[in-house]
Amino acid sequence: MSKEQEFLAYLKEIAMLQEAVGLAEWDSQTGMPDEGASYRAEMSSYLSGMAFDKSTNEKMSGFMTYFEENPEELSDFGKEVYAKAKENYDLNNNIPVDRFQAFMKLTSNAHSIWVKSREAKDYGIFKETLEEIISMTKEFIPLWKKEEKTPYDVLLNQYEPGMTTEILDSVFAQVKDGIMEIRKEIEEKGTAPQTDFLKLPVSKEIQKEFVTQVIEQLGYDFNKGRLDDTVHPFMLNLNRNDARITTRWDETDFAMATFGVIHEAGHGMYEQNVDAKFDYTPLAGGTSMGIHESQSLFNEIIVGGSKAFWSKQYPLLQSLTGDTFKGIDNETFYNGLKETKPSLVRIESDSLTYPLHIIIRYEIEKMIFNEDINLEDLSTIWNDKYEEYLGVRPENDLEGILQDVHWSGGSFGYFPSYALGYMYAAQLYHAMNKEMDVEEILASDDYSPILNWSTKHIHQYGSSRKPNQLIMDATGENLNPQYLIDYMKDLYYKVYKIA
Amino acid sequence: MSKEQEFLAYLKEIAMLQEAVGLAEWDSQTGMPDEGASYRAEMSSYLSGMAFDKSTNEKMSGFMTYFEENPEELSDFGKEVYAKAKENYDLNNNIPVDRFQAFMKLTSNAHSIWVKSREAKDYGIFKETLEEIISMTKEFIPLWKKEEKTPYDVLLNQYEPGMTTEILDSVFAQVKDGIMEIRKEIEEKGTAPQTDFLKLPVSKEIQKEFVTQVIEQLGYDFNKGRLDDTVHPFMLNLNRNDARITTRWDETDFAMATFGVIHEAGHGMYEQNVDAKFDYTPLAGGTSMGIHESQSLFNEIIVGGSKAFWSKQYPLLQSLTGDTFKGIDNETFYNGLKETKPSLVRIESDSLTYPLHIIIRYEIEKMIFNEDINLEDLSTIWNDKYEEYLGVRPENDLEGILQDVHWSGGSFGYFPSYALGYMYAAQLYHAMNKEMDVEEILASDDYSPILNWSTKHIHQYGSSRKPNQLIMDATGENLNPQYLIDYMKDLYYKVYKIA
Repeated sequence: MSKEQEFLAYLKEIAMLQEAVGLAEWDSQTGMPDEGASYRAEMSSYLSGMAFDKSTNEKMSGFMTYFEENPEELSDFGKEVYAKAKENYDLNNNIPVDRFQAFMKLTSNAHSIWVKSREAKDYGIFKETLEEIISMTKEFIPLWKKEEKTPYDVLLNQYEPGMTTEILDSVFAQVKDGIMEIRKEIEEKGTAPQTDFLKLPVSKEIQKEFVTQVIEQLGYDFNKGRLDDTVHPFMLNLNRNDARITTRWDETDFAMATFGVIHEAGHGMYEQNVDAKFDYTPLAGGTSMGIHESQSLFNEIIVGGSKAFWSKQYPLLQSLTGDTFKGIDNETFYNGLKETKPSLVRIESDSLTYPLHIIIRYEIEKMIFNEDINLEDLSTIWNDKYEEYLGVRPENDLEGILQDVHWSGGSFGYFPSYALGYMYAAQLYHAMNKEMDVEEILASDDYSPILNWSTKHIHQYGSSRKPNQLIMDATGENLNPQYLIDYMKDLYYKVYKIA
Repeated sequence: MSKEQEFLAYLKEIAMLQEAVGLAEWDSQTGMPDEGASYRAEMSSYLSGMAFDKSTNEKMSGFMTYFEENPEELSDFGKEVYAKAKENYDLNNNIPVDRFQAFMKLTSNAHSIWVKSREAKDYGIFKETLEEIISMTKEFIPLWKKEEKTPYDVLLNQYEPGMTTEILDSVFAQVKDGIMEIRKEIEEKGTAPQTDFLKLPVSKEIQKEFVTQVIEQLGYDFNKGRLDDTVHPFMLNLNRNDARITTRWDETDFAMATFGVIHEAGHGMYEQNVDAKFDYTPLAGGTSMGIHESQSLFNEIIVGGSKAFWSKQYPLLQSLTGDTFKGIDNETFYNGLKETKPSLVRIESDSLTYPLHIIIRYEIEKMIFNEDINLEDLSTIWNDKYEEYLGVRPENDLEGILQDVHWSGGSFGYFPSYALGYMYAAQLYHAMNKEMDVEEILASDDYSPILNWSTKHIHQYGSSRKPNQLIMDATGENLNPQYLIDYMKDLYYKVYKIA
């Protein structure tokens, strides 16, 4: 066995351990018996500890040193894999194992404290734990740091390689202005769509039948995935042939699960179409959270926000629901789906105001890590920003600072991915339209050209290309938020009948 | 950390790896996407290989030697654990790792060949593979052997410690004679029950609602388990708080899933009630396949064959099924459930002829390992025995030698467990009745005294006591097949109205 083969076999072990941890996680969220929880925590922590150990131990550092000194022993493919493995190795290499484990334990316990805090709608219960998580994160930042400029840049980079506060400050300012302008136009000149039908009862079974057919048309492959029920929807890829999605259902809000499933299917389709040559290497799987969200949001917002798409799918929904939507014509249905309304909860927000929710989180996270604000004030800061940007103020912390799970898991720097994904999606949509008429395809029986385009430009590469390279190669330019602003303007002015 | 604590921590690692393998297995049978299969095989083989390695490597042999030389360093509990660990260690210690892995691979491939062979209803396709499995098993027998007398005794002991062909020859002869006598009586003097209602349509949802309520009453705890759909029903315990069961459904044969689920719940209740002190040691989990089957068959046949039980449960079934069973009274319903009829397929057979199916397999397995018969003749031998013992002859190999999965997995010596379990169940039932009126309890709203008795005498001990000790302590005597014969006589003479 060559040294490269030995290296790949070792990486495969790590990948298989991560796969086992992934399955355990999926299971614990889709129906593990309640009382199995503590046993599951033990097992998952053992397996993920083993994966972490293998990623940082002497054997791994041996490979790192060996190939640094003997790069000529690596094939071109081996070089790609090595580069990514080295990146991962360098990331956590300076974190002492006991501190890593303490952090895992802290965030694991934090989840149930966050849940309790939510039940009481009181940030006070969660505050101390959050402070500990922030404090440990601040302890890790210098150890993670490579060449990034600010502490928060270090965190951003973990989810979106190459991203900086400098770039985000600029694009978010542009996006914010764009949205504010559109909202002002709508308020002054818009005609609000009819939305009462969105609450019409549709059984879970029918919703499931409908959305299953929709995502199959979009290209989600059920031979390489499955759809389950959870409290918090997610996609989890055990491997490229097993990329599972979940959702929650509300029988008086069919749009929630419909768009939720279309969103997760976008994540799943990304994973299902990564080139098989990356199997069991750190190059398998999507390259960043931002690019991942670009695929899910392309599905959910661009496809799911297309009038042509609904001209095809609404009749299917009607055929499954009998008389439920009687009297609601195509246009009324479509316009109702695209209503915009300022709201308090990110995951319930519409596709115009969504970026504002992200920008608020971005600004607060940046304050936490770059400005050393008083954490006592976090809840108030949150509420003030909602009032300023969206004109609504949370009445309690559940509607406010306690709404997202991310911080309890120590995921700071993650939120911007959602807005990046949205901007990427609009930019990719623009590029795609140069090669085909996407609307025409969405009105047709064959959606495959869209999936093929995305696979060709994004999916196949797995993590072998960085986000900025993918976007540059696929669209011919760097991240440009103007495409999103133009897209939103065009869409919302039509829905709100603004000439 | 004391040496004992170190030892227990090491055993815990093995237990957690086995738990991960168990979850992977459960998942692969309950809904893993089809195309994930090869990835799953890789992961499971990696994890189970690691568990096997840890069970046999230098570190483990170090513990074995150390405690052999320093038994005084073990607590009483540690001694129990050590004894079982030593037993497991000695079992596989002489098998070379590469041969073990070859065997795993062989049986893993054998499964799909067996499936193909079934599809063609042709044993010829499977024959060569089966011969290889038998040949490797014969290679392992001397390496497994401790003090057992015949080669087949070595295999029997792996599923039922202490069991021998000598004992089985004797008890099976007695059981066979008993059954033959009952069958003759029934044929000459019996009145066959009405059974047409057994094919009445009952939807899967209603069957599930019914049997879920039934097993909850029996004591299966859904906070420590769950019920899923599979092709082949099973119980799989990840740990005592996560003992999952599965079943298959037939909407024109409600009795199949009903008894199937009650059976698996019996396995699950055993695992759910093992003492927590055995967690993460080789003493967690049931002590043998025979004792395990005693618990599942107690549930399925003794409880599920009780007239008092159905006097309480039939009204529940009726209340869930509307007019379906209109005109079928309690006694008609009960008698129909207990019809006996010779059949070709073990898992579809009734509780009178069931042991004959096992005895046939026992006799054939004994011939294979103790008498070196020509494997060419296996299918004919099988068919001849069915004709002799049951008066029916398979028309093809699917109805004959290809019906069971066990041999494709290399499980020889396993089948007798089913008959042992049945005999144990009848013997335990007899002992239980000395302390309480089991029929009266089964007609009541509170079944807990039965579960409590079983937990007290069987469940709590996990694998810390051997089958013969459990049976002796619980019933005051060794395995005695007469209880089963008496039980069957009493039941079937009533059902068939023989004075």
